[in-house]
Amino acid sequence: MKKFLDKDFLLSTETSKKLFHEYAAKKPILDYHCHINPKEIAEDRRFENISQVWLGVDHYKWRQMRSNGVEEKYITGDASDKEKFQKWAETLEKAIGNPLYHWSHLELRKYFGYEGVLNSKTAEKVWTLCNEKLQDKSMSARGMIKQSGVTLICTTDDPVDTLEWHQKIKGDKFFDVQVIPVWRPDKTLSIEKSDFLDYIFKLSKVSGININSFETLKQAFQKRLKFFISLGCRATDHTPEYIMYVPALEKEVETIFDKKLKGKVISKEEELKYKTAFMLFAGREYYKNDLVMELHYGCKRNNNTSIFDKSGPDTGHDCINNFAPSAQMADFLNALECTGELPQTIIYSLNPNDNAVIGSIIGCFQNSAALSKIQHGAAWWFNDHKTGMIEQLTSLANLGILSNFVGMLTDSRSFLSYIRHEYFRRVLCDLIGSWVENGEYPYDIQILSKIVSDISYDNAVRYFKFKL
Amino acid sequence: MKKFLDKDFLLSTETSKKLFHEYAAKKPILDYHCHINPKEIAEDRRFENISQVWLGVDHYKWRQMRSNGVEEKYITGDASDKEKFQKWAETLEKAIGNPLYHWSHLELRKYFGYEGVLNSKTAEKVWTLCNEKLQDKSMSARGMIKQSGVTLICTTDDPVDTLEWHQKIKGDKFFDVQVIPVWRPDKTLSIEKSDFLDYIFKLSKVSGININSFETLKQAFQKRLKFFISLGCRATDHTPEYIMYVPALEKEVETIFDKKLKGKVISKEEELKYKTAFMLFAGREYYKNDLVMELHYGCKRNNNTSIFDKSGPDTGHDCINNFAPSAQMADFLNALECTGELPQTIIYSLNPNDNAVIGSIIGCFQNSAALSKIQHGAAWWFNDHKTGMIEQLTSLANLGILSNFVGMLTDSRSFLSYIRHEYFRRVLCDLIGSWVENGEYPYDIQILSKIVSDISYDNAVRYFKFKL
Amino acid sequence: MKKFLDKDFLLSTETSKKLFHEYAAKKPILDYHCHINPKEIAEDRRFENISQVWLGVDHYKWRQMRSNGVEEKYITGDASDKEKFQKWAETLEKAIGNPLYHWSHLELRKYFGYEGVLNSKTAEKVWTLCNEKLQDKSMSARGMIKQSGVTLICTTDDPVDTLEWHQKIKGDKFFDVQVIPVWRPDKTLSIEKSDFLDYIFKLSKVSGININSFETLKQAFQKRLKFFISLGCRATDHTPEYIMYVPALEKEVETIFDKKLKGKVISKEEELKYKTAFMLFAGREYYKNDLVMELHYGCKRNNNTSIFDKSGPDTGHDCINNFAPSAQMADFLNALECTGELPQTIIYSLNPNDNAVIGSIIGCFQNSAALSKIQHGAAWWFNDHKTGMIEQLTSLANLGILSNFVGMLTDSRSFLSYIRHEYFRRVLCDLIGSWVENGEYPYDIQILSKIVSDISYDNAVRYFKFKL
Repeated sequence: MKKFLDKDFLLSTETSKKLFHEYAAKKPILDYHCHINPKEIAEDRRFENISQVWLGVDHYKWRQMRSNGVEEKYITGDASDKEKFQKWAETLEKAIGNPLYHWSHLELRKYFGYEGVLNSKTAEKVWTLCNEKLQDKSMSARGMIKQSGVTLICTTDDPVDTLEWHQKIKGDKFFDVQVIPVWRPDKTLSIEKSDFLDYIFKLSKVSGININSFETLKQAFQKRLKFFISLGCRATDHTPEYIMYVPALEKEVETIFDKKLKGKVISKEEELKYKTAFMLFAGREYYKNDLVMELHYGCKRNNNTSIFDKSGPDTGHDCINNFAPSAQMADFLNALECTGELPQTIIYSLNPNDNAVIGSIIGCFQNSAALSKIQHGAAWWFNDHKTGMIEQLTSLANLGILSNFVGMLTDSRSFLSYIRHEYFRRVLCDLIGSWVENGEYPYDIQILSKIVSDISYDNAVRYFKFKL
Repeated sequence: MKKFLDKDFLLSTETSKKLFHEYAAKKPILDYHCHINPKEIAEDRRFENISQVWLGVDHYKWRQMRSNGVEEKYITGDASDKEKFQKWAETLEKAIGNPLYHWSHLELRKYFGYEGVLNSKTAEKVWTLCNEKLQDKSMSARGMIKQSGVTLICTTDDPVDTLEWHQKIKGDKFFDVQVIPVWRPDKTLSIEKSDFLDYIFKLSKVSGININSFETLKQAFQKRLKFFISLGCRATDHTPEYIMYVPALEKEVETIFDKKLKGKVISKEEELKYKTAFMLFAGREYYKNDLVMELHYGCKRNNNTSIFDKSGPDTGHDCINNFAPSAQMADFLNALECTGELPQTIIYSLNPNDNAVIGSIIGCFQNSAALSKIQHGAAWWFNDHKTGMIEQLTSLANLGILSNFVGMLTDSRSFLSYIRHEYFRRVLCDLIGSWVENGEYPYDIQILSKIVSDISYDNAVRYFKFKL
Repeated sequence: MKKFLDKDFLLSTETSKKLFHEYAAKKPILDYHCHINPKEIAEDRRFENISQVWLGVDHYKWRQMRSNGVEEKYITGDASDKEKFQKWAETLEKAIGNPLYHWSHLELRKYFGYEGVLNSKTAEKVWTLCNEKLQDKSMSARGMIKQSGVTLICTTDDPVDTLEWHQKIKGDKFFDVQVIPVWRPDKTLSIEKSDFLDYIFKLSKVSGININSFETLKQAFQKRLKFFISLGCRATDHTPEYIMYVPALEKEVETIFDKKLKGKVISKEEELKYKTAFMLFAGREYYKNDLVMELHYGCKRNNNTSIFDKSGPDTGHDCINNFAPSAQMADFLNALECTGELPQTIIYSLNPNDNAVIGSIIGCFQNSAALSKIQHGAAWWFNDHKTGMIEQLTSLANLGILSNFVGMLTDSRSFLSYIRHEYFRRVLCDLIGSWVENGEYPYDIQILSKIVSDISYDNAVRYFKFKL
């Protein structure tokens, strides 16, 4: 029996261990997609206790607690931080097989030096230990970033964002980790939402362009995108329910937009036509500006209306949307490719069944513009666990060139989540090491070490053309 | 090489063996969902030969025989029981990798004391041996239930059922296993079927309520449900093709119902509106009465019309229906949750691709009303095999709290099928034991033994609030 | 660590090794579905260099090269064969986990006697070695077929094909491998395409029947099919996007066909009605003529319009189409079954998620006309790799009778692809051997050897009723 979470955690062969310890583990971290608040980096936020770090905004953990019958009071309610931590520990004990079990313990080992187990009985001890450790300077936002070996962070930002914190961080000589905005204009896409017009008003104000048509919306988009690029932006992100393709004439799109501006109801088909036109426009802008387009699709958000009305989005009430016709995704990419304007693209689906679909589609649009110009993104959110990663990596290897994969990201709001990169690298090295030891690839350490180093870090640097 | 089906069958690690033999195997069986005929329990049915037990109504086995080119005469036709058994043995020999291969041999070992292999050559010997054993009193319906360690059985019953056999069993002092009806009003839902009105007529008669509107249908529903509850009913079951959500005003539903009553054709959209309204009503009733709602979706029934016309339903001619938009399932649950009327719910899909979808949806509706109030049901029917179970358990562990899972059921018409609980427990213990031995969860036998005992039995007792 | 690709490649247990080496490996090859050009067999084509063999038409390899950022010049362009080979070697080195890595090396071992690794450094050496070997008489088209142990090849042919090469091969006394046409009338189905009428014109000419109605189309179909049968045709093939079922009256179909003939636009619904009618007609003809109907669905072709306009189809720009309602597939088969006219059918989906759907549907239509009359076809195209095969085999075993499986085909344009049969047999023997060694099936070598021999070769001979 292997010891729980020892140094060879998830590494089942000698080659896997060698690849991880001697190569993958030594690479820095490039976190090209996360939801960290740049303000917390700029201000170098400190945390009073482990509940603030772990339970403040992490809806993954909230979900688990609710699944364990914990009252909302102890999750997002007014119970004390210590009580909340106790409830979390009781929940974690039961979360056998869940990635949070591994992530939490990896964090306890790496950042808090705690080699034991967190459960209902040890909660008190761990609470004290962690909170003491949090007093340490190395445990500030920046401290955690630095000790994690992070070289660059991409946050996720709205076009109306002032990016003031990014500017502050950039101007700060005492912090050498790059913190770069990612352009996520989801609200510009969501024409069906009731707050769309409020948002358009905001965007008008921030951009200084009076948005009274689709055409002027595009101008505002371009102007703000330029601003993002001036602060180092290299990537963009969209999260439509699925990648639709319902093409329409520009004129028709203007009519739809006008209808919406006038407060009229637009039909589902009009919504899809607007969205298609918007996404095509956006894709072309990214191509023009040599930006990477990330597409995260397959999520249906805010499914619990009672909670949403009380607490808003991102509380752990989202699910997989399994309507995602691959034909439309292929047609969308083709529409951009037809005119030579398909940017580098990374596709993620929340539905694990889409692995092969994505693998087969990206293969239709590869060319010499980049190594695997169109990428199958890392196992996302509900798939971010050992089995999900193995499935994504295996599918990508079966259908594409795994060696060119841009690899892992945290997608997280927490400064401790960098261990997800470690987790990913262990899974990756174990998979590759196992293939080698099973006679499926030669034991050529020069090539193998390059493959795992590339996927761990170097591919992402090259793909996004970061200056590092 | 492990011996075929020895005591450590499917148990690959020491921890797996310990968890199974010392804990899981010792728990009684709570079969909260099956299709056993309560009459056979009430009358303590005896079986003349093994074909009666195995081949009388088991469409899983019929399917396999047809797949092996066996003539219908030897399946549901007029061949002798002995001939049928011979054909089954010839088929089984070829069913490598099929769960029936394991189930059949587990049954031969447990109930008949036969440690050998059943194949074309041994068929004669096994025929004789089993038939002798069947003379034994322990091999009556009740005998098999008792020696299997069953404490409670939920049968599946129609609202018009008199439940006379349940009453008889309840009144029988010589039998201490609880046999409880489960409310399954599928025929009330199936407004598109040609025999809907006949059924409504029957329901009118049994309930004493003249059903001439949706409103009066609801009253009949409530009255009959009350009757079921009086006989201990704790759970309900629905098997729609998918969990639809096409909401309509009550008035409109009345109009649709009226159309149907008048013999007019209703459209697909009207059907969906009626069904949505019916399911919402049903869900609210279950909430009010603190009943568990089971949803079995994803099945398209009676696909072979020739056979159906001759032999009716449940002959092995059903298949997976892969149209099941997750968005509608989420919206349906949300509609109940909005008014605080979502009952405890267990969701099963016949489509194994739906594991992650279900896992992501149930997480949106958990709260402190129960430990994992919304459950991802055990691998169902076409998924009831080693790989299907591993996938369901792994998905649930990845997305929810596996420790709170209510576990296995037989879903069977046979008194020997209790070995499916054993089979499930072996798979469960092997999965958990393997995680532990791979360093993915600490070896803490107190916690681990509780987890497997809970999933094997205790969670179901608590979840359904059975009095045991 | 196992040596890379040694004699026990992919065989992890002693039973697996025994089953493969002593039984499966010794069976001949029956390639009942491929895309080899019969002209190349008739003329016994010779190859000047390895690029001609490997990179001439293999869009699997082209895709990988594009995914590795190789310029089109080195793929389908005017670079030299040697340069192309170098680029391929550089790509292959990075294709860890990809089936091409295994296939390529298996081919190098079997046909070229090269036991080393092909990568960027060894490319030059391998180029020279292979090209020398290609001078050998054993390396002509026929030489490769003969040394592979092939007894019969089914090519894929259009109804308008003259089959002149098949006739020549048949008449050639110096070649004893049967080369038989498979009837693939896809162009007759594709009523939505712009070149449909051109094709109908061609078919009119070849058949000598003036096609001016659906009825006369059917006559031409029948006449050409008869011709195919006269040359030994035993199987047919269709590749619709999905198996649709939108029934219509004959009269309506005639109207649709007439519309098309007159150059009018037909709607999507009309297209589906025509296609359904055509497929039903075709199925009945196959039943009448005792032919096997192969259905390959789930592919969306030619997704990259720029490339298609330049280079036409089959260039590596196809993807999975994930819209394929199982209900329609079941209804289509049922429509044929209702009148007793469902032929033996093999169903393949390009979407790996369809395994269980197919397994559940085929079980509805089995009868004593054949051993597993309706078959779940081997893992196809994007699924033709170790994991895809294991999934297909496991699903089939779970839901049907694996022992009756007709097994592998190459689906290839290359004379070296027969190693895919070896690859498949290794995977098959490893799966079965592992079950046995894990105590899931008895170690009965007589039965086991029959199972692997049947799946490797004998089942296909019986199923297609080839004369061998």
